[in-house]
Amino acid sequence: MINMDEKTSISELKEKVKKFCEARDWDQFHNAKDLAIAIITESSELLEHFRFKSEKEVDEMFKNPKKRDEISEEMADVFYFLLRLAQKYDVDLASELIKKLEKNEKRYSLEKARGNNKKYDEYKND
Amino acid sequence: MINMDEKTSISELKEKVKKFCEARDWDQFHNAKDLAIAIITESSELLEHFRFKSEKEVDEMFKNPKKRDEISEEMADVFYFLLRLAQKYDVDLASELIKKLEKNEKRYSLEKARGNNKKYDEYKND
Amino acid sequence: MINMDEKTSISELKEKVKKFCEARDWDQFHNAKDLAIAIITESSELLEHFRFKSEKEVDEMFKNPKKRDEISEEMADVFYFLLRLAQKYDVDLASELIKKLEKNEKRYSLEKARGNNKKYDEYKND
Amino acid sequence: MINMDEKTSISELKEKVKKFCEARDWDQFHNAKDLAIAIITESSELLEHFRFKSEKEVDEMFKNPKKRDEISEEMADVFYFLLRLAQKYDVDLASELIKKLEKNEKRYSLEKARGNNKKYDEYKND
Repeated sequence: MINMDEKTSISELKEKVKKFCEARDWDQFHNAKDLAIAIITESSELLEHFRFKSEKEVDEMFKNPKKRDEISEEMADVFYFLLRLAQKYDVDLASELIKKLEKNEKRYSLEKARGNNKKYDEYKND
Repeated sequence: MINMDEKTSISELKEKVKKFCEARDWDQFHNAKDLAIAIITESSELLEHFRFKSEKEVDEMFKNPKKRDEISEEMADVFYFLLRLAQKYDVDLASELIKKLEKNEKRYSLEKARGNNKKYDEYKND
Repeated sequence: MINMDEKTSISELKEKVKKFCEARDWDQFHNAKDLAIAIITESSELLEHFRFKSEKEVDEMFKNPKKRDEISEEMADVFYFLLRLAQKYDVDLASELIKKLEKNEKRYSLEKARGNNKKYDEYKND
Repeated sequence: MINMDEKTSISELKEKVKKFCEARDWDQFHNAKDLAIAIITESSELLEHFRFKSEKEVDEMFKNPKKRDEISEEMADVFYFLLRLAQKYDVDLASELIKKLEKNEKRYSLEKARGNNKKYDEYKND
């Protein structure tokens, strides 16, 4: 395995995903609608691990190396399709994330959001 | 806005997400099960943009700056919760992605996969 | 197989689902949150059949008896958990459906909605 | 409101959904792929109510009439698109449900499944 880690940039990962897909001539299938379908179906496979499980059971899963690997692989699948969508439609995921965090800094002010599990549009009911 | 871009590493992004969430004392709500729920509900908001739309209509959305921003923001939301899950449970998204690409290199050999929209487990039916 | 068909009422189906689950002592796991997770993960298995497939390929699936059975089974899975949620929390699915159709009669007036794939909240942009 | 209730049969509900959609000339948009997308996006709106909420908070939602109505409406939305898919592709939801319950009677034998939250394919690991 090539030595890569968390220091890898998003653009390097996008490039790898692009090469993988283009070598297989998959551009013809990878339109935004089908990639969004792929993202949600992979998210569902991730969630399915936790269905009908208690919080305690879920935490134990992460301590079991085999189970942990399975869950991590589902996360990679979601990430793969998200990167592919970003690459095909030229969306800068890092900038978009930062932009969203800045927007949420306002929506979820420290004063209102600390220790609170409400969505920002539920604050008005307080 | 801080000057960040696609060159940003995943570990830097994870760090930002961590700081955002910890400042709000959200560790108590951010267990794996609820984060997986968050990932799928945000994926659904992304997909909803394309519901009942033709491939041509979807491609036009990306040319409309306002619509493009809305879609990019949904992608950021999926990414945010994926990073948060990875950060909380110490999953190295970059390594996991590379591992999965390597696994898929074998499952989707160039010979079988080129120009083919089948899932690897459908090949056996050929 | 018991002779049942589309003439069966929802309350009869709910009763069957209830008996099946209670015989297995599953009330303890079947809270609303986990049942909603079950509904979405089964919906995802339904959708997965159509991932990366063209409209023509999807229509052909319904002509293939084996594939048609697989798809119908996924629909049954969604229905099963929806009935179970309705039964456990005493929601009258038939009345709720009628109520929603009446609400949508107004939102999607014949004049605006005919031959139109927009969501009601997009009309304002016309 | 027309007086209907749980005694209503599935075929009557399907007929109502059919009339509603055909009056709006929506057959052209309601292919299986887009209806499956609709089912999952509505399932997600249902699930979103429970995101980051504890089991106790979820149970309290059903005691709050306004919240209960909102949740029931999301359930109706899932049901509406499931009925529409069944109607368009001639799937008999009641028979399919019964068939699936019979299949699961075997998969989840009383002996193995009672009080157990495992999926049938996890039993082998016992």
